[in-house]
Amino acid sequence: MNAFPGRIGVVGAGALGGYYGSLLARAGFDVHFLMRRDYDAVKRDGLKVQSIRGDFHVVPPVHRTAAELGPCDVVIIGLKATDNDALGELLAPVVSPATVVLTLQNGLGNEERIASVLEQRGIGRGNIVGGVAFLCSNRIAPGVINHTDHGWIRIAEFEGQERERTSAVKSIFDRAGIDCQIGESVPRIRWEKLLWNIPFNGLGVAAGRADSAVIMADPELLGTARALMHEVVAAARADAVELDAGEVERMIDRTRSMGAYKSSMQLDFEAGRALEVEAIIGEPVRRARAAGISVPHMEMLYALVRRLDAHNRG
Amino acid sequence: MNAFPGRIGVVGAGALGGYYGSLLARAGFDVHFLMRRDYDAVKRDGLKVQSIRGDFHVVPPVHRTAAELGPCDVVIIGLKATDNDALGELLAPVVSPATVVLTLQNGLGNEERIASVLEQRGIGRGNIVGGVAFLCSNRIAPGVINHTDHGWIRIAEFEGQERERTSAVKSIFDRAGIDCQIGESVPRIRWEKLLWNIPFNGLGVAAGRADSAVIMADPELLGTARALMHEVVAAARADAVELDAGEVERMIDRTRSMGAYKSSMQLDFEAGRALEVEAIIGEPVRRARAAGISVPHMEMLYALVRRLDAHNRG
Repeated sequence: MNAFPGRIGVVGAGALGGYYGSLLARAGFDVHFLMRRDYDAVKRDGLKVQSIRGDFHVVPPVHRTAAELGPCDVVIIGLKATDNDALGELLAPVVSPATVVLTLQNGLGNEERIASVLEQRGIGRGNIVGGVAFLCSNRIAPGVINHTDHGWIRIAEFEGQERERTSAVKSIFDRAGIDCQIGESVPRIRWEKLLWNIPFNGLGVAAGRADSAVIMADPELLGTARALMHEVVAAARADAVELDAGEVERMIDRTRSMGAYKSSMQLDFEAGRALEVEAIIGEPVRRARAAGISVPHMEMLYALVRRLDAHNRG
Repeated sequence: MNAFPGRIGVVGAGALGGYYGSLLARAGFDVHFLMRRDYDAVKRDGLKVQSIRGDFHVVPPVHRTAAELGPCDVVIIGLKATDNDALGELLAPVVSPATVVLTLQNGLGNEERIASVLEQRGIGRGNIVGGVAFLCSNRIAPGVINHTDHGWIRIAEFEGQERERTSAVKSIFDRAGIDCQIGESVPRIRWEKLLWNIPFNGLGVAAGRADSAVIMADPELLGTARALMHEVVAAARADAVELDAGEVERMIDRTRSMGAYKSSMQLDFEAGRALEVEAIIGEPVRRARAAGISVPHMEMLYALVRRLDAHNRG
C-alpha cells in the first residue's frame, strides 16, 4: 500500500468529477481525466476551478478514451447516473483486480451497475467504494468549474465490513483538503442523502421549478416534502437502514436556513438535460415496492418526474 | 307553476352558460344573459354556437349588470368556480324567494357559497338546485361558442328530498333538447364527476400538460390516476356517497376510448387562466381531512396544482 495511490483516473469529469479531480491534482496526485466534450479545452488550457475557497488552475493529463487512460489504481466515477449505460465501455479498460473503484454518483443502484461490469472482468464487489458528495458546483464553460458551496464526501465499503482501502481512499481526500468521512454502509450513506434528495430534487421539478425556499414557504408543499421524507425513512428501514427519528425535522430546519437553493435536478430540468430520476426516485420506489412498503407520495413523485423529464426533452 | 319558467337569467355566460342559455333561447324561453366581457359583441350580433349537433344563432336580451337583469324565475350559474367571490354581487339583484337557482359549476362548495348569498336575502337552501354538466365547449371569440362533444346534465336538489321544482328544471332542458337527468343528491352527482375530474384534470396539469391519452399510456401515471380514483371513492363514502365499486375500472375503460382528451383544467393552464383547483381538488381534500380519511395522492396533487396555478400566472 506504500505506493497507493499511483494513477488516479477520473471518469465523468463534469462539475463533480472535475472539481474533486482538480483538488487531487493540485495536491500532487497523479490524476488523469477521461473526457470527451471538454477534451480539447482541457488539453489546451487545463482545468480552472472558481471556488468559494479560492480559485485555482491545474494542467493534468487528459485522455479521450478509456483505452488511452488505461489501468488505474483508483478510479473515481462522477458520471451522471443517466449515463450509466456507458459504464461497461468506460470501466473495462481502466480496472484491474487491484483497482479501487469509487463512485460519487447520486441515488441508488450505481454500485450494483459497477459490480456487474467488474464481475465480467473477474473482479469482485470488494473493490467498490460507494460515496456521496454534498457539493454545489457547476460546469460553466469547457474546462471551467464554478464551486459555490459545500464539498464534503461520505464514503463506505460496498461489501459491508470496513477495509483498509476505505481508510486509504479517505486519506487521499484528506491530503487534498477535502472533508471525507467514512460512513457505516453504502445503503446508509445513500438513504441519508435521499432523505433530502427525494423531496427537494423531486418537488423542485414537479412543483413548477420550485427552489427550496418556495417549498418551505408553501404549507401544502412542505407537508408533501415531510410526507415524502417519512416514506424515505420507512423505505430505508426496509433496506436495513434505520435513520434517526429526529432527522426529518432537523433536515427541514437546515433546509429553511439554506435560502432559495435549486437542486441539481431542478438545474438539469431548467437546462433541458436528462434527469437522474431513476437513481434518485425510481430505484428507491422499486426497493420499497419489493419490500412491500407503502410509499404513495414517492410513487406519485416518480410518475410525475419521469413524465416531466420525458416531456421536457421531447 | 303554470307560468314556469318566466324569466331565465344566465349568470356567467361563457362556454358553458352561453351554450345552454343559447339552446334554451332557441327553444323559445325568455333567456337573459348577464355578461361583461362579451356584452358589446352579443348585443350587436347575438350568440353564435358552432356545434357538432348543428350550428345556430340566437339574439337574446343581454345585460351588463345584475341590477339591469333584475329578478328572474330561474337563474343558471355558469361562472368559473374561481369567480365565486363575485356571487354575492351578481346574485343579490336577481333572486327572490320564488327564484330557482341552478349551478352548473365544477367541483365542491358552490351550492354552499350560493346558499350563504341567498341566506342574506332571507331565501332558504331549498331554492338551490345543483347540477353537473358533461360538456366539451369553448368560447373561441366574443359571443362565439364552439361545442365539440357531449352536453348532458345531471341535477339534484341541494336540500336533499326531491321536489317538484327539480322536475320543472329538468322539463325546461327537456324542451330544449338537452339531455337532463335527475340525480339522487348533490353530493352524489358531484362526487361522481370528481371521480374523473380529480385525476384527469389534476394530472393534466401536474404531469406536464398530459392529455388523457398520455396518462392512459404511461403505466406509472395510470397507477397514480387509479390511486387517486380509489381515494375519491373513500372520500365520497365519508361524505355519505357510496360510489359503485366497479366504477373506477369502468371509467378507466371509458377514458381509454376517449382518445387524447384535454381536460378543462389543462386548457385553462395552457391559456394562463386561473385553475378551479380549490373547487375540484382543494375542497374534496379538506372534506376528506375533516372526516379523517387518508388521501395522500389527492393531497399531493392539491399541493402541486395549487403551486403550478400560482406559478403559471405569477
